[in-house]
Amino acid sequence: MLTVHHLNNSRSQRILWLLEEMGTPYEIAKYQRMSPLPMAPPELREIHPLGKSPVITDGDRTIAESGAIVEYLIDRYGKGRFKPARDTDDYWKYVEWMHYAEGSAMFPLLMALFLGFLGDAGEPLRPHVDAQIALHLSYMENGLGGRRFFVGDELTGADVQLLFVLEAAGSRLAPYPGLAAYRDRTHARPAYQRAVEKGGPYQLMSR
Amino acid sequence: MLTVHHLNNSRSQRILWLLEEMGTPYEIAKYQRMSPLPMAPPELREIHPLGKSPVITDGDRTIAESGAIVEYLIDRYGKGRFKPARDTDDYWKYVEWMHYAEGSAMFPLLMALFLGFLGDAGEPLRPHVDAQIALHLSYMENGLGGRRFFVGDELTGADVQLLFVLEAAGSRLAPYPGLAAYRDRTHARPAYQRAVEKGGPYQLMSR
Repeated sequence: MLTVHHLNNSRSQRILWLLEEMGTPYEIAKYQRMSPLPMAPPELREIHPLGKSPVITDGDRTIAESGAIVEYLIDRYGKGRFKPARDTDDYWKYVEWMHYAEGSAMFPLLMALFLGFLGDAGEPLRPHVDAQIALHLSYMENGLGGRRFFVGDELTGADVQLLFVLEAAGSRLAPYPGLAAYRDRTHARPAYQRAVEKGGPYQLMSR
Repeated sequence: MLTVHHLNNSRSQRILWLLEEMGTPYEIAKYQRMSPLPMAPPELREIHPLGKSPVITDGDRTIAESGAIVEYLIDRYGKGRFKPARDTDDYWKYVEWMHYAEGSAMFPLLMALFLGFLGDAGEPLRPHVDAQIALHLSYMENGLGGRRFFVGDELTGADVQLLFVLEAAGSRLAPYPGLAAYRDRTHARPAYQRAVEKGGPYQLMSR
């Protein structure tokens, strides 16, 4: 059986969404962030040594890392959909977005989050971090170019990877009408709504 | 013609290394970090709007993002080597490492670098960041498990992605004998040495 180890308000929300889009049966094992610091609970280390989410288990196999999980699920259960045909221009654009989301775009957003913990002490870095976030958002705005999806005419794993970045950007999306409309449109998809219903309250959706 | 847009002391060093291992002909366009802040120079934005390195151009195609470039080069020029056969256990381990290197492992190392710019003001976050770095290094130490390569019995793209993480970790590798030996052994490879010779002085190699 395919199980998604799901931490609330985390990247595993994107995995639930993908599975709902694919119509693949799965189970959810739920984990709650701790407080006051919103860390993952130690139980997740029993599933994978890094103790992070998302992680999936599929029979004997355990896979961590959003990009790898998305690739695995689409290869295994996607029935040829959710990614462009190999070695087309769209395919390489897809591969680039797949790595870009977590390899580049998330970094300044996470930095901003951490600088927030430092309060005024983080001020000297804030202009640099804000400029990097703006650079990435305008890159994505141009990359989307007013189209419905990031690659081609159908939803792909690239959308699954990138939507979380837009959710993490929250109110910073306001100056980017294409991205904001894309996010709102995607949140209205029935599969997305089912994923939120199954995963439990998702704060990043409503910012 | 295949061109690597190479910024000194950056992730593009890994792309030169991969191409030397593959024996693929390529050209290098060199860019120098600015000073006093070691940012990429604005000329790189003419190649790709994010203005970062690595970027490759191959005929009409431009590809950014280390993971995507490594996948592209291996698919296009790897002659079936440098990645495990599709859909084996090793293949999915490979995909996981490919995303893990830049999607997870680099984050606390970059955070440590940025906190360094803040001096004492960054202290409150340092214990958390140091603990995350140690978690990732011991995960990689265990993942390597004293073997010669991260996946299977031959060099793959996973090694190309992960070596840079180890280089960025610098002296923090000392408590991890498997990783330190792996790094030193890899630095002694003729292809690696040719890549450094062609790319120009590489500080991250000697820390």
